[in-house]
Amino acid sequence: MARYLVSRSDVHQFIERCMKAVGAQSSHGSALAKVLVEGDYRGHYSHGLNRLDIYLKDLETGICAKDGEPLIEKSTVATALVNGNNLIGPVVGNFCMDLAIQKAKDVGVGWVSAYGSNHYGIAGFYSMQALKHSLIGITCTNTSPLVVPTRGKKIEVHQRHGKKIPVGWGCDSKGNGTTDPVEVLKGGGLLPLGGNEAAGGYKGYGLSLMVEVFGGILSGSLYSENIRPWKETNRVANLGQCFIAINPNCFASGFEERMSDLLKIHRSLEQSEPGLPVLVPGDPEVLHITECEHHGGIPYHVNVINFMNSVAKDLGVNLIPTNRTIDP
Amino acid sequence: MARYLVSRSDVHQFIERCMKAVGAQSSHGSALAKVLVEGDYRGHYSHGLNRLDIYLKDLETGICAKDGEPLIEKSTVATALVNGNNLIGPVVGNFCMDLAIQKAKDVGVGWVSAYGSNHYGIAGFYSMQALKHSLIGITCTNTSPLVVPTRGKKIEVHQRHGKKIPVGWGCDSKGNGTTDPVEVLKGGGLLPLGGNEAAGGYKGYGLSLMVEVFGGILSGSLYSENIRPWKETNRVANLGQCFIAINPNCFASGFEERMSDLLKIHRSLEQSEPGLPVLVPGDPEVLHITECEHHGGIPYHVNVINFMNSVAKDLGVNLIPTNRTIDP
Repeated sequence: MARYLVSRSDVHQFIERCMKAVGAQSSHGSALAKVLVEGDYRGHYSHGLNRLDIYLKDLETGICAKDGEPLIEKSTVATALVNGNNLIGPVVGNFCMDLAIQKAKDVGVGWVSAYGSNHYGIAGFYSMQALKHSLIGITCTNTSPLVVPTRGKKIEVHQRHGKKIPVGWGCDSKGNGTTDPVEVLKGGGLLPLGGNEAAGGYKGYGLSLMVEVFGGILSGSLYSENIRPWKETNRVANLGQCFIAINPNCFASGFEERMSDLLKIHRSLEQSEPGLPVLVPGDPEVLHITECEHHGGIPYHVNVINFMNSVAKDLGVNLIPTNRTIDP
Repeated sequence: MARYLVSRSDVHQFIERCMKAVGAQSSHGSALAKVLVEGDYRGHYSHGLNRLDIYLKDLETGICAKDGEPLIEKSTVATALVNGNNLIGPVVGNFCMDLAIQKAKDVGVGWVSAYGSNHYGIAGFYSMQALKHSLIGITCTNTSPLVVPTRGKKIEVHQRHGKKIPVGWGCDSKGNGTTDPVEVLKGGGLLPLGGNEAAGGYKGYGLSLMVEVFGGILSGSLYSENIRPWKETNRVANLGQCFIAINPNCFASGFEERMSDLLKIHRSLEQSEPGLPVLVPGDPEVLHITECEHHGGIPYHVNVINFMNSVAKDLGVNLIPTNRTIDP
């Protein structure tokens, strides 16, 4: 099926004008646009333009705050507790990761916990901020009760495209495995990483609990079943997020050389299927970025563009330019 | 098949006398005994008595240091780099976790990275030290090239018991999935948590890389394929480990109440299979501890006891008392 090709700046401006139309502070519109465009550019379509409508809905209804700044409530040289003041996730995320970065520069590690936050897009956006300062960045967020946040979005994309999901991703409302995204979204749930118990699913379950502890329990935000159901926007989300920065200089010298060597070892491994090279985290994103650069824009599924333009019409703003297509 | 029942103190003393026989510092023998007994008591037989022979072999051959203490090489209020001085893992682990705990009490988080370490038994032993101080504890270690450390031990236990492994655990030397533990141990490898790519195996792969970065790359220890193969003891292991303690008091107040509530929510979830209650991390261990308490000892597979007693004979020390059995 044909895909629309849209330049990064066209997507960015589209998001900014939608955000302006719902009354968001201009810097907040820009912060959201940066995160969502980066999501699509890196190939994480589940967390890009496709997700704009929830941010807009939360702002339109006044459920999410349209202006203001996050607030540091408690801090040590290495830690901070931040009140996100119910601002959109990217505004809270940038504030907290900047803080964690400063602390990691000062004392080797910065651990910042935020409550009163909202959806913040691709987590990688924030860890990559730390990378710019030669620090390791980590972040996690809790979310509506779905078990594994990132899988939740993927399943929705499959539903939007009318495709089945692979075995092991989700279960129906009775806890039985299913490949039908509709069943998962209709009262079912997501299986933790690993799938069933014998295959190690309890490890994925433990990891998702760790994310809840770091995101929700440490910060004092809502957590678990207390968070509003996915796509319900009749009450404040009050999500909890965690932002960590680590300074390799405080440990053994030569970190970057060893890191490069480790990635080289992995990329050079013999392939189990010829033609499918062994990748390292970030490689699939680089492949997608290369594809975007080659085409001169981000390719979008027609359903995503149509959905976004129906949102734009409702808001009375200019549509996304759709004069270019690929894969006819 | 019948299992031998051995009291905690009998196992502890057996390990201490084996360690003494190979010339280990007395406090080191005691440290190892504590970790291995705790492993078996909690049901992680892959990391208990079953594992004693590698520690002994490394000490006997002089590949691992028989006495001494770890050394802090670099530190900030929140971080430390420790030289494990090639001591056994539990000695390095206790030293580093104590250090992380002190830092977390002082500034909210302690992040300690160790190189020059060795196998340290169940990771949970060290995180539970933090728990005693009402802190969150985290630790990870790198190991010989096996992909997922904990799975490696499990596969060996299956081999020792002559059992197949579940689908999704391992692959043969050509990268094809297999349920034969022998194929996995004979030039094959372990699949990351999640199994194949569609089921999210790349996430488990990413997580195992994170463990290597925190364990090996930060600390300057050996890493990846540079680590000696599993069970080869002709050269120093120089493993890297990471010990983190986090002080919930530096974040939102009421942490323990929220934590208890979260666990209660999970344990109260409707069961997908009646009779199989939803557990939280630590529950399977508590069930095993209850079983040990009920029997008045730790139940051991006959092969494990026979193997250990053959080790004892070689060292010329008293055997494990085996006058009690269960499951005839």
